[in-house]
Amino acid sequence: MKRIVTLGEIMLRLSTPGFERFVQADNFDACYGGGEANVCVSLANYGLDARFITKVPKHEIGQSAVNALRKYGVDTTYIARGGERLGIYYLESGASQRPSKVIYDRAHAAIAEADSSDFNWKEIFDGIDWFHFTGITPALSDKAAGITLEACKAAKEMGLTVSVDLNYRKKLWTPEKAGEVMATLMPYVDVCIGNEEDAEKVFGIHADDTDITKGEINHEAYEGVAKKLIERFGFKYVASTLRESHSASDNGWSALLYDGEKSYLSKKYDVRIVDRVGGGDSFASGLIYGLITEMPLQEALEFAVAASALKHTIPGDANLVSTEEVETLMKGDGSGRVQR
Amino acid sequence: MKRIVTLGEIMLRLSTPGFERFVQADNFDACYGGGEANVCVSLANYGLDARFITKVPKHEIGQSAVNALRKYGVDTTYIARGGERLGIYYLESGASQRPSKVIYDRAHAAIAEADSSDFNWKEIFDGIDWFHFTGITPALSDKAAGITLEACKAAKEMGLTVSVDLNYRKKLWTPEKAGEVMATLMPYVDVCIGNEEDAEKVFGIHADDTDITKGEINHEAYEGVAKKLIERFGFKYVASTLRESHSASDNGWSALLYDGEKSYLSKKYDVRIVDRVGGGDSFASGLIYGLITEMPLQEALEFAVAASALKHTIPGDANLVSTEEVETLMKGDGSGRVQR
Amino acid sequence: MKRIVTLGEIMLRLSTPGFERFVQADNFDACYGGGEANVCVSLANYGLDARFITKVPKHEIGQSAVNALRKYGVDTTYIARGGERLGIYYLESGASQRPSKVIYDRAHAAIAEADSSDFNWKEIFDGIDWFHFTGITPALSDKAAGITLEACKAAKEMGLTVSVDLNYRKKLWTPEKAGEVMATLMPYVDVCIGNEEDAEKVFGIHADDTDITKGEINHEAYEGVAKKLIERFGFKYVASTLRESHSASDNGWSALLYDGEKSYLSKKYDVRIVDRVGGGDSFASGLIYGLITEMPLQEALEFAVAASALKHTIPGDANLVSTEEVETLMKGDGSGRVQR
Amino acid sequence: MKRIVTLGEIMLRLSTPGFERFVQADNFDACYGGGEANVCVSLANYGLDARFITKVPKHEIGQSAVNALRKYGVDTTYIARGGERLGIYYLESGASQRPSKVIYDRAHAAIAEADSSDFNWKEIFDGIDWFHFTGITPALSDKAAGITLEACKAAKEMGLTVSVDLNYRKKLWTPEKAGEVMATLMPYVDVCIGNEEDAEKVFGIHADDTDITKGEINHEAYEGVAKKLIERFGFKYVASTLRESHSASDNGWSALLYDGEKSYLSKKYDVRIVDRVGGGDSFASGLIYGLITEMPLQEALEFAVAASALKHTIPGDANLVSTEEVETLMKGDGSGRVQR
Amino acid sequence: MKRIVTLGEIMLRLSTPGFERFVQADNFDACYGGGEANVCVSLANYGLDARFITKVPKHEIGQSAVNALRKYGVDTTYIARGGERLGIYYLESGASQRPSKVIYDRAHAAIAEADSSDFNWKEIFDGIDWFHFTGITPALSDKAAGITLEACKAAKEMGLTVSVDLNYRKKLWTPEKAGEVMATLMPYVDVCIGNEEDAEKVFGIHADDTDITKGEINHEAYEGVAKKLIERFGFKYVASTLRESHSASDNGWSALLYDGEKSYLSKKYDVRIVDRVGGGDSFASGLIYGLITEMPLQEALEFAVAASALKHTIPGDANLVSTEEVETLMKGDGSGRVQR
Amino acid sequence: MKRIVTLGEIMLRLSTPGFERFVQADNFDACYGGGEANVCVSLANYGLDARFITKVPKHEIGQSAVNALRKYGVDTTYIARGGERLGIYYLESGASQRPSKVIYDRAHAAIAEADSSDFNWKEIFDGIDWFHFTGITPALSDKAAGITLEACKAAKEMGLTVSVDLNYRKKLWTPEKAGEVMATLMPYVDVCIGNEEDAEKVFGIHADDTDITKGEINHEAYEGVAKKLIERFGFKYVASTLRESHSASDNGWSALLYDGEKSYLSKKYDVRIVDRVGGGDSFASGLIYGLITEMPLQEALEFAVAASALKHTIPGDANLVSTEEVETLMKGDGSGRVQR
Repeated sequence: MKRIVTLGEIMLRLSTPGFERFVQADNFDACYGGGEANVCVSLANYGLDARFITKVPKHEIGQSAVNALRKYGVDTTYIARGGERLGIYYLESGASQRPSKVIYDRAHAAIAEADSSDFNWKEIFDGIDWFHFTGITPALSDKAAGITLEACKAAKEMGLTVSVDLNYRKKLWTPEKAGEVMATLMPYVDVCIGNEEDAEKVFGIHADDTDITKGEINHEAYEGVAKKLIERFGFKYVASTLRESHSASDNGWSALLYDGEKSYLSKKYDVRIVDRVGGGDSFASGLIYGLITEMPLQEALEFAVAASALKHTIPGDANLVSTEEVETLMKGDGSGRVQR
Repeated sequence: MKRIVTLGEIMLRLSTPGFERFVQADNFDACYGGGEANVCVSLANYGLDARFITKVPKHEIGQSAVNALRKYGVDTTYIARGGERLGIYYLESGASQRPSKVIYDRAHAAIAEADSSDFNWKEIFDGIDWFHFTGITPALSDKAAGITLEACKAAKEMGLTVSVDLNYRKKLWTPEKAGEVMATLMPYVDVCIGNEEDAEKVFGIHADDTDITKGEINHEAYEGVAKKLIERFGFKYVASTLRESHSASDNGWSALLYDGEKSYLSKKYDVRIVDRVGGGDSFASGLIYGLITEMPLQEALEFAVAASALKHTIPGDANLVSTEEVETLMKGDGSGRVQR
Repeated sequence: MKRIVTLGEIMLRLSTPGFERFVQADNFDACYGGGEANVCVSLANYGLDARFITKVPKHEIGQSAVNALRKYGVDTTYIARGGERLGIYYLESGASQRPSKVIYDRAHAAIAEADSSDFNWKEIFDGIDWFHFTGITPALSDKAAGITLEACKAAKEMGLTVSVDLNYRKKLWTPEKAGEVMATLMPYVDVCIGNEEDAEKVFGIHADDTDITKGEINHEAYEGVAKKLIERFGFKYVASTLRESHSASDNGWSALLYDGEKSYLSKKYDVRIVDRVGGGDSFASGLIYGLITEMPLQEALEFAVAASALKHTIPGDANLVSTEEVETLMKGDGSGRVQR
Repeated sequence: MKRIVTLGEIMLRLSTPGFERFVQADNFDACYGGGEANVCVSLANYGLDARFITKVPKHEIGQSAVNALRKYGVDTTYIARGGERLGIYYLESGASQRPSKVIYDRAHAAIAEADSSDFNWKEIFDGIDWFHFTGITPALSDKAAGITLEACKAAKEMGLTVSVDLNYRKKLWTPEKAGEVMATLMPYVDVCIGNEEDAEKVFGIHADDTDITKGEINHEAYEGVAKKLIERFGFKYVASTLRESHSASDNGWSALLYDGEKSYLSKKYDVRIVDRVGGGDSFASGLIYGLITEMPLQEALEFAVAASALKHTIPGDANLVSTEEVETLMKGDGSGRVQR
Repeated sequence: MKRIVTLGEIMLRLSTPGFERFVQADNFDACYGGGEANVCVSLANYGLDARFITKVPKHEIGQSAVNALRKYGVDTTYIARGGERLGIYYLESGASQRPSKVIYDRAHAAIAEADSSDFNWKEIFDGIDWFHFTGITPALSDKAAGITLEACKAAKEMGLTVSVDLNYRKKLWTPEKAGEVMATLMPYVDVCIGNEEDAEKVFGIHADDTDITKGEINHEAYEGVAKKLIERFGFKYVASTLRESHSASDNGWSALLYDGEKSYLSKKYDVRIVDRVGGGDSFASGLIYGLITEMPLQEALEFAVAASALKHTIPGDANLVSTEEVETLMKGDGSGRVQR
Repeated sequence: MKRIVTLGEIMLRLSTPGFERFVQADNFDACYGGGEANVCVSLANYGLDARFITKVPKHEIGQSAVNALRKYGVDTTYIARGGERLGIYYLESGASQRPSKVIYDRAHAAIAEADSSDFNWKEIFDGIDWFHFTGITPALSDKAAGITLEACKAAKEMGLTVSVDLNYRKKLWTPEKAGEVMATLMPYVDVCIGNEEDAEKVFGIHADDTDITKGEINHEAYEGVAKKLIERFGFKYVASTLRESHSASDNGWSALLYDGEKSYLSKKYDVRIVDRVGGGDSFASGLIYGLITEMPLQEALEFAVAASALKHTIPGDANLVSTEEVETLMKGDGSGRVQR
């Protein structure tokens, strides 16, 4: 069985029930997630051996985050304990023309203030095939960026495949800072996932003629971005989701993969959205699954897109679909007929 | 007032809240339903005198199933008590490309192990006009098949109109077994409801050129199936719903009725789905209501289709709409404007 | 900061959870609202100084209604206390072809039986810029109509701008009675909001060739109605929402404003509905906000329509959106992308 | 099987969840109850044939009240339909030193404004053994008092046993009015249930030396009251519960029955309260069950007290315990050990 | 009407439903509270003019905290906006031998990092009679301690009565630091509330022979502590609650007030606990209410104790009881009989 | 770290919310538990390496049971997959004189129909120190009894300590059958937990003069039973909980341990019950923890009793307390003071 490690933050997610606005909520639905944790849960759920690396405080809220990972089969053995707090994000689900809103309260989280000595990468990566991280972790703090770099170096040294989801977060850092830090990490990366906006914000690489608020998609422009990313950093593959945001309720969803020579374009799904958060992470985990199990590139891409289309129908951060369910959709049955 | 009896299983339905997957649920919404019970509740709700026949265990869960029927005015006087357990089905509601899932846990239910002596059909059918059953009941067990046959014979003997909803369930029996058992029951049936898939699986009758996963409808093919059913079994009417499954959230919904000479095709509704389960049962109860109250055939069909379109918007198994509401929709007002 | 007063009823709203029908509900979601209260909350929420005038009973349910207003910053100082009961309305949310249903239980409410002496308009209107009421308040009772007239007279006398939302409610009075009473109030009104149906029912003014159950819109017809309203009552502005009811789940939503010379037509939004109630009130509050802050007419109209499009996505009666959110949508971003 | 009729009001009960105060509640638990309805449900639940007589509005809230009765097996055939509204009561559950609070909103209810012609007592009482009413029904309105009198007369004429629970409600009428009206009804009564406070308020009969707020019980005083009631009205039996209110969470609970010659005193239970409402009604239904099934007087009293002790542990108005459960407690097993 | 200001932190409280442990919770009940906010809400609820001073972030979670205060009538005009985050505390309710648990996540809250310039005390205290703060606010940070000192000075200068609740929090500071900072504030204080533990931890003043884990109370020891506090700081009054912790479910609750000459001891209540948090705050607000409305000392103390006994039965931080309810209990009616 | 294996059934537990009766429930709280699973979760929660052995069906409900174990750190690697269904038990929580009720629906569960070949005990027990089972597992079916015997033999052979909780279940087998089967297993057992009732029902060993419904405890009688058990089967230790069932809300709770020479009696706790289910299992896991970590016998017993006293306050089957929490209570702090 293939083995993977992801590094990142796991937060307490507090979402308002139904479509309530924050000011209406008298209770919050609670779950635990974060970009890298979501990828890890999804991969464990597909049956891989997936280990998550982070730091959580020693109290029961920290433990609850660990339990949420264990529940879905993630290996939590190497999660460090200590620090001040668990990061939080508040979520209000939008609908129609009203966008979903996220309020982050993640500063001073244990992982953001973790120390290099909290993680022994030789031990953590022993017997592991793949290492995945995102642009969020190095954005948390300089210390977190340092830890990410150490992880990348160790991974490369120990022969792991390394993937990144660029995931630019404007609340965490500036494009300048992001570009500077991420540039030090990219040399270790084999597979880069990132949409046009990420590429532009982090590396100043941009596509022409695309207005993301309009929901129009220009594949050629995306391919151009991918090409530039590979030229600059030597990635093996670059992939990007292609989201057409018609509204908070309805999106078009497809993706593109470029291997330096050829670009693969997936089928497009029109998704009726239940929970939009974690959509990108479910693409990343689907793609990693496809690549690590050595599917042909087009198939790996289709797997990733079908998987993430399904994610949009599942409440919570993580993509709790089976490989069988993804495959059924890939094969064309999106009829939604009751499975008895 | 017209009086009807239905025979079948009533199960505890345990559904996950919202769009939660099974593995996410910390509580289940509970209601009680099943194909024939749903028809019975709906007919009682339309104002008919409707009696349900089944067997439930003597404990409080069995009683709760009885109470659920009484609440909506069903006559539960002749429900037998005893046996081991109440059948259960677990339901996870799908959305968009993700189908709803049903896990049955109905083996060894009281009705499946009921004895012929539990039911006195002379008494049960006294003063009754119509008897309805489905292909699920005889599929439960040989004993249940035997009871169904006894009921059919008594009904015919006592002059009731008999209707069946073929409802093939692949988890309960094979096409061979189904064909064999159902063939013994069909001679007593006047009105047969069943879609193409049922006809094919149970009686090996099939339409050409229809792929149910594609959501395309071929009316002529359906009419051909209906014709063959009437030829073989001498039904007075054959009806079928025509579901176009665009996704788990959106379906096209219409139906066809064939009287041996002419086929009637209903208006089609594009339904945004709240709860898909019981859609077919609501069509059956609508059609029975139309026929028993002697509506013209086209009107009876339109009533059935409008009624079942509305069912798709109601949580739970049963179709809790009034005849007035159905008629409003039949007359063309599907505008959904607030009724104050 | 501009200051506004609205007069009307605030009711306890008891709505079934999810899409449950009334007969299925074992609990009700409770909030407090009503046409004029909704306008007042929305204006307070936009940052205006908004005062609500009503009468509520002295018990805790009455106090809860006051608290609901205070929570969103409404000035409740002049709310009278006493009387028998707080009005109630029961709400069942529809979907697809099934309309939402409202059952009113508002007779004998404190405000319907309030006395002229309960309100000192000189004090209430001191320093106020705008007075808003609807056709519901005078419909409650003759005493309430009398109070509304006193308020209108005082408002005019003290130089306030006066707006009305015609809001014809057939359960409260007949067209004859409505026409008679409303005619005594119109002379004090500057801004009249009312759709075609209101104009026809209350004043016998009607547009040609529009069938509201069909969801077709005829702008010219509406303009004709507006013209007639201005001719008869000398309003400064007449505005109307243009709802296209495709179903209980999907509406087209736009509006028209006529200033006696020119008619302004807004952009149209296709809204996926979460909560339809209060849609008209959110348009009224949006328009008042636009006019009171002296936006150009087209902009004021666009603000009102964008605001009320957003309201359709928010549970409860009131429109809890910020001016920033409305402006984002006005500027064309209805993509619903997550705001992080 | 013994058959019983009760006449009265059924209300929508809206209670705050947990121990929330009214001003904290964002939703209400909904059930349907009322003194006489509670007695009727309990008797149906014990297996008797119990029929409830009231009037409810024709809308879905009225129907929901009927459904709540049907669910537990009550015969609702003779419930009249029409009128303005269904009465409501709001309930806030107390604890420890904080008392539970009830806010009534029952004026103008359909039953309060029902007409004599709504009920055909000859038909209603046909084949019935027992008629029960309470002091609440005649207090609702003069019309309701008139209907109650007609029912009493018909019951007596047709040979039914008649019981009353005095249940004085100070919000509905004055002691003077109560005394006057109730005196006209008492001649038809065989079994009178009423505590000291009722006897004093309604008939000016009082015990010495008892302070109900102190929780002390003086059996001799109660016996004196019972004696005076029998002397004045010729009842066959008088019964009273003896509640020791230590706090909203803990009560002592016993009762006394006097047959004109001898007084029977029950065992006392120390009850930990879950839901205090309907405690008296569960005693009444227990006593009626004991008497109608011809238990010896001491046994009938013990049944009634044990039954009502159990009621205090059940949420909602009605006493949903089986006769077996009551008998287990009567026989001394109050250990609360898990029944597997 | 008397006017009061309190200064402090308001936090988001996230509590597990029912008696769930943290690791079991899939949702949290949300409300907003904190020692000084609780006092403020309670005083507004008693009908005083109560103003709360704090700083909250500009986002919707900050606004929700403000709304929670406004809902209960608190004046929020002078609350500063800005800063990083709103403090949080997680609460798990205990029962029997299992204690309730609080996990604080309040570091870096807006009020802890507020600046002196955020508050204009001349304006804030204009027309105000009383200023209340607790030992929690100066413990938050040096800046918060500075702000508290400025508030105390201004209050004294402008002639307000000043009260403090010592409220030592060991997670926020050491006894040494607490003693040092609090000593600079005490000269401005008129009324000091604090139990034995507070006095010992903050000022090294201790009573002999009391073991707080045993639930035994030694009044003389408490009087000795009060005497020493007055000697050292010249307070006008010192008050302390006397909690006897039998278990997490049952407490004895009384209090003592010392005026420098005489000590007053209240009645003791045995309380069955619903929500223990805010018990001390409800005593403080009750005492302030008694003193500010010039009740005799014994009466003020009884009011405070009765009020806080009632608080233990109310979910959430704040004491939402009316003065009438407190007075009923003070007069001896703790019978918990239903108030209809 | 010590390692333990438990073998048994894990069921879906469906409990009514609050104190609702089965017939009132419209939803069920869902968790997963069972005697042996509860012991396993509790031991994993104390920090031991705990492995659970059972068989669950391959569908999502089976997986949910596995996830519930993983969440709390149980090793689920060797759980077999397959079979027909997951057992269920329905739970209604009692209060005061009303007992809790359990309805089992566990027949035909996967573990009851598991095959010997599903478990490789050499592999399962490799490196394990302790094996625990209960009298429930062999009662499920002859096959399950056979598997239990194989496990016992392998455990003994491989040098593990073996413990049993007799746990007689009258719905599963007769005393005769139980005695016969259990007698074949006892020779492998080192530590036997079982109360008087178990000993009497299973082995016909009984104490004199104890009436379990009265809540009186006779320690000497228990010691006599323990002595007889050791004489017959050669156990090293026999332990029994001593429950005094005052009511469903209040129990006295203590225990006795006998080592063949001396009997140890624990402190007694008066527990206010939140959830009674799993009380015995929490004692077993506490005792195993005490013995496996080599506490002195009295301390091990006190640990077990304090742990299980705390369990009674936790909803769900499992005892989610930490060793620190147990130790705090053992040391005498049952004051329930808030832990901040």
